[in-house]
Amino acid sequence: MKPEVGLQLRSLVKGTGELELSLVDVLVPEPGTDEVLLRVEATPLNPSDLGLLFGAADMSTARQSGTDARPVVTATVPEGLMKAMAGRFDVSMPVGNEGAGTVVAAGSSPGAQALLGRTVATSGGAMYSQYRCVPAPQCLPLPPGTTAAEGASCFVNPLTALGMVETLRREGHTALVHTAAASNLGQMLNRVCLEDRIGLVNVVRTAEQEQILRARGAQHVCNSSAPTFMRDLTEAIAATGATLAFDAIGGGTLVGQILACMEAALTRSASAYQRYGSSTHKQAYIYGMLDTSPTVLRRNFGAAWGIGGWLLPLFLQKIGPEATQQLQRRVAAGLKTTFASRYTKEVSLAQALSVEEIAVYGRRATGEKYLINPALDV
Amino acid sequence: MKPEVGLQLRSLVKGTGELELSLVDVLVPEPGTDEVLLRVEATPLNPSDLGLLFGAADMSTARQSGTDARPVVTATVPEGLMKAMAGRFDVSMPVGNEGAGTVVAAGSSPGAQALLGRTVATSGGAMYSQYRCVPAPQCLPLPPGTTAAEGASCFVNPLTALGMVETLRREGHTALVHTAAASNLGQMLNRVCLEDRIGLVNVVRTAEQEQILRARGAQHVCNSSAPTFMRDLTEAIAATGATLAFDAIGGGTLVGQILACMEAALTRSASAYQRYGSSTHKQAYIYGMLDTSPTVLRRNFGAAWGIGGWLLPLFLQKIGPEATQQLQRRVAAGLKTTFASRYTKEVSLAQALSVEEIAVYGRRATGEKYLINPALDV
Repeated sequence: MKPEVGLQLRSLVKGTGELELSLVDVLVPEPGTDEVLLRVEATPLNPSDLGLLFGAADMSTARQSGTDARPVVTATVPEGLMKAMAGRFDVSMPVGNEGAGTVVAAGSSPGAQALLGRTVATSGGAMYSQYRCVPAPQCLPLPPGTTAAEGASCFVNPLTALGMVETLRREGHTALVHTAAASNLGQMLNRVCLEDRIGLVNVVRTAEQEQILRARGAQHVCNSSAPTFMRDLTEAIAATGATLAFDAIGGGTLVGQILACMEAALTRSASAYQRYGSSTHKQAYIYGMLDTSPTVLRRNFGAAWGIGGWLLPLFLQKIGPEATQQLQRRVAAGLKTTFASRYTKEVSLAQALSVEEIAVYGRRATGEKYLINPALDV
Repeated sequence: MKPEVGLQLRSLVKGTGELELSLVDVLVPEPGTDEVLLRVEATPLNPSDLGLLFGAADMSTARQSGTDARPVVTATVPEGLMKAMAGRFDVSMPVGNEGAGTVVAAGSSPGAQALLGRTVATSGGAMYSQYRCVPAPQCLPLPPGTTAAEGASCFVNPLTALGMVETLRREGHTALVHTAAASNLGQMLNRVCLEDRIGLVNVVRTAEQEQILRARGAQHVCNSSAPTFMRDLTEAIAATGATLAFDAIGGGTLVGQILACMEAALTRSASAYQRYGSSTHKQAYIYGMLDTSPTVLRRNFGAAWGIGGWLLPLFLQKIGPEATQQLQRRVAAGLKTTFASRYTKEVSLAQALSVEEIAVYGRRATGEKYLINPALDV
């Protein structure tokens, strides 16, 4: 049953300034006592995966060589960005945060044996592999009738959406603003907020994205390309009472604009001049970097404000394993509804390394998420 | 004993775009049961006072009219900054956060009567006045032998310095970075940190300021004008373990540079590539706005970071009255040592409204702090 070798996708940034993506043959390990061997059948290309996959390379310079079944993609890392890559120079790195597949071999422990033949999801990294050996306790057995594709994105997006809502509750906010809101994650957050009756202000960039969210029941959608954006956003924030924001974009002025609209909503009913603005704390978290340019803050939002990084692993570490498992149970129960993901296309590992496909999924465009199925490779 | 009227300095931003500073005669009130009437003899021109005094006006346009004893200063508010001033249009505002003087009349309560004839400090606002009626419990009686001038700055700077150290302790940091560190406040913070054996990295802008701090026992002083600044700052942060920063400047790239140096210090001993950087939280607070231009963050400091506003009144509200009083007792005990302030010049209210003096103290330059003595006005 257990094969000798399997393909694994690798990302290598050379000290000479070149990114190289390739498929390598790796030995398929024998699972240890409490481990299982997974045949990976579905693993998404999330924005967080693209960060590790492409590094700081300029993918418009991507060239493809090798064969169709064993492609090699090379691209140039701009010199100014090399310093940030120094920690990974000349280290061939596996990629893929999460995925799902069938357990084809298991160690002798009861926990591992119980998973044999089951379809499970996991988030151990290196998922862009045909076979992956993982500790049995790190597997989430999918409910019967759930496919690997349906369970491929059990962790990153669902736990991020739930983590945002959990952050809101723990920090005492009652409503929130979300940017890049038409994304897979954004639509998921919209469903969670509708379920939990939490006010959500969705910020999108196009009228088309606005329609996507409105068609899915979103009440507050603001288009940042509209000339009335700042007014619209202030109104939506005033209507919901949002004092928390999660921003996937990072660069530019948007985070500061959101805080400024929160401040405008908070102070517009003030009876006297407050020279330091509202005393209500306004908090924004940057959790993505769709725009890698600097964040620019005009600080026109009083004194009671905070901005910070937000990273799922650090958040889960903070809330601890018990609270994390509680979130995971909610995900498992809603995999086909609240936490369902949509994919534009399913590709093999080799197809994922074609410059044509990279040009599509590499744009990180809303509604163009790919799913890799390493079982398609031969 | 109680005079009928006294002078009060006023700041008025007109809806037409003009700032007007003037002295007005106000009726001196009879103190209520638990109030005292203070003859103000010393009140500093702090940066936080200048914010209210000048508003968003361009003080290079200042023109003086009226008489020497009753000057009127007018200046233009740039059109782009008018919106931020809307809340105070056509409201004649008194100025002056803190000060000290002699209690010349008191209400009938024992607490008020006990202060009669004493030299006290207070922070009730409107201190740029010859007479000021304040609740007795808001007065800090100065220790015998302490002059009004010595007690004029009992609140803003001392409590800010202690508030920074208190923030450090409450948030679990062990050392901190401070910018504009040669200021009155910066020198005070240096003394507090030396006393409390807390690591302090002082960031200054000139070699002269560096000397000022080194002469006062500061161990880590980094000059942001030096070509080696980023390296120096990283070394000082590594030596102290600073993960907290207080920034008085606000605009530009400095806050982000400090976080980047903290991240560099935290990750330089890392054995493996950490794609999201160090998991140690790095926090910066912006408490001033010496530079009103936008804050620019390159976000080259991992995922575990936060930036926020820090405002003394909000902080004291958060820690509560008991903790605040504890800090105030420490200030009173160290007024002539740890918490002593230095002033370049003592001026009357009228002299404070001369364009020549405004040109000096309005620069907010390190080591050019003025003290107003309204008892000098006739």
